[in-house]
Amino acid sequence: MSGRIVVALDAMGGDSAPDMVVKGAAIALQRFPQCDFMFFGAEPRIRPLLDKQHALTAHSTIQHTDDVVTGDAKPSTALRTGRNSSMRLALDAVAAGQAACAISAGNTGALMAMAKFALKTLPGIDRPAIASFFPTMRGESVMLDLGANVECDAENLVQFALMGEVFARTVLGLARPTVALLNIGSEELKGNDAVRGAALRLRAPGSPINFHGYVEGDEIGAGVADVIVTDGFTGNVAVKTAEGTVKLFIDFLRSAFRHSLMARLGYVFAKPALAKLRERLDVRRYNGAVFLGLDGIAVKSHGGTDQEGFASAIGVGVDMCINGFLEKIRDDVARMSAIAEAPEKTQSAVS
Amino acid sequence: MSGRIVVALDAMGGDSAPDMVVKGAAIALQRFPQCDFMFFGAEPRIRPLLDKQHALTAHSTIQHTDDVVTGDAKPSTALRTGRNSSMRLALDAVAAGQAACAISAGNTGALMAMAKFALKTLPGIDRPAIASFFPTMRGESVMLDLGANVECDAENLVQFALMGEVFARTVLGLARPTVALLNIGSEELKGNDAVRGAALRLRAPGSPINFHGYVEGDEIGAGVADVIVTDGFTGNVAVKTAEGTVKLFIDFLRSAFRHSLMARLGYVFAKPALAKLRERLDVRRYNGAVFLGLDGIAVKSHGGTDQEGFASAIGVGVDMCINGFLEKIRDDVARMSAIAEAPEKTQSAVS
Repeated sequence: MSGRIVVALDAMGGDSAPDMVVKGAAIALQRFPQCDFMFFGAEPRIRPLLDKQHALTAHSTIQHTDDVVTGDAKPSTALRTGRNSSMRLALDAVAAGQAACAISAGNTGALMAMAKFALKTLPGIDRPAIASFFPTMRGESVMLDLGANVECDAENLVQFALMGEVFARTVLGLARPTVALLNIGSEELKGNDAVRGAALRLRAPGSPINFHGYVEGDEIGAGVADVIVTDGFTGNVAVKTAEGTVKLFIDFLRSAFRHSLMARLGYVFAKPALAKLRERLDVRRYNGAVFLGLDGIAVKSHGGTDQEGFASAIGVGVDMCINGFLEKIRDDVARMSAIAEAPEKTQSAVS
Repeated sequence: MSGRIVVALDAMGGDSAPDMVVKGAAIALQRFPQCDFMFFGAEPRIRPLLDKQHALTAHSTIQHTDDVVTGDAKPSTALRTGRNSSMRLALDAVAAGQAACAISAGNTGALMAMAKFALKTLPGIDRPAIASFFPTMRGESVMLDLGANVECDAENLVQFALMGEVFARTVLGLARPTVALLNIGSEELKGNDAVRGAALRLRAPGSPINFHGYVEGDEIGAGVADVIVTDGFTGNVAVKTAEGTVKLFIDFLRSAFRHSLMARLGYVFAKPALAKLRERLDVRRYNGAVFLGLDGIAVKSHGGTDQEGFASAIGVGVDMCINGFLEKIRDDVARMSAIAEAPEKTQSAVS
């Protein structure tokens, strides 16, 4: 690739595709001039959009296909019947070494199934996980798994910790990110076997992980650790509960500002500052859930995103390429496998 | 008890005890004039406080004990060594039929362990659960389990659904509350066996439950269902993540208002309305986590609460007594056990 990074784009995935995909790529090219783009999808729809983006045109190719994975397609069906879909062809380009990463705003379940099939799991990793960002008082944290694995054992959680740590290093640029296991504070029963077993492993001498210990749900937003590791059921519920709470808060805030004439006046004065607040909580900034643990880079952009959000998702993929995500994962997996399980009792794993 | 309700109070539990316990009881007496109070704890400290509350004095007795369960005591230690503690004696009063309910702001784990031991589990209930309120756009919902049971099977979740439904009827005054199971939206793997199995049972013909189906984390705050059922690990993480998100939002809001002179001015105008907002999200209003499934009523008040919060917790216990919580649970357990497991496939359980 002679120093250039080829990005495979599913041009048809997402509510505003292909428009936001093309515009998103144009934004991403300004940020990463070393990128070339392969657009997979309906050429008659992509071409006119691309023609409007002069800078982008010279760095783009279109790989035509009529097939699209619909938003409501079942993963198993998409896998069986979507062999020529824009989503699948973008992933195949990564598998074949033609592209360094693939980005899609399409159907999450289908993308996960196809990415697993096309890219395969990295040696030493049993199950891939979905990771994303969580805004915190200190900036942002990485959290995984967010729904790929409903039930996880200690070994899965240890692998998630490794993958999340490398992701935080390569994408957030942290030299030595702290990693925590999400747990509950009931004194009676502190966590389940998987969490306690994973803590033992992560705390063992020689572990490549800067292990913080356990965190509870209310410490995520405080930014207590850079990487929060949990099973896919808990992680999915936690992230969505946080989203729902933000919506609830905004709803309460809105009715507070409508409460009196004074409050309305206050709103007028505070409006620009409140717009900044909204921006800070804007999911587009945190766009890009990543499938970690695959032998190739695939980023899932939010289905309802716009060009800014899509450009962020491209940025996540490109950062992972530039900073050698896959190589670093391989190194860490090797280091972790070299460590025998620690013999200490569970008690000592309580932070 | 001749129409009067006797409330047993652990006068020594909580950061501001016994002061806020006595003041909380005074507030509760205004709301529930049919109540009498038994204060368990250090009489030399309680008596002077009680003497200042004239209306309350006539309806109160003090049961002196020097023993207190400390905030950091392990549940097993508290159970073994705390037989004469204020917490334990309050629960014993309920077990002996001297009081209708017990309220404590002390150590959660110890209270749970002692309540299980002193009150025993209701017939037909395998494991008690911790329930509390969650503020929503439509008012408030009941959520359980919040940490008593780290791992749960389908039968446990069904029992939680029953207990939560009766709790919503007796405390929120809802005639026919909707009940939902918390689940994740990954198309690939919709929930685990426990969640799917519980959905089948709750949906079966003859089920006493008004079953809404599944909800995802972001639907909790929207108030989509009146009762949200989940295992104790997920529930604890969800509630604490929501708490952390509210703190994060307030932090962001505060810095937004400091952002410019205009914004500061806006804050001055909007201040009364924002105070209302804070009140709406005030945990004191939602104070009182309840141990459901025990053969007696025990309410846990937040350890850091004040008299208002403690009065709310008393109110939760008294509402349960007045509205026949225990009798209703017994009825529902009998109705549910009469239903054979439904033979349908899991597929049909997806809402």
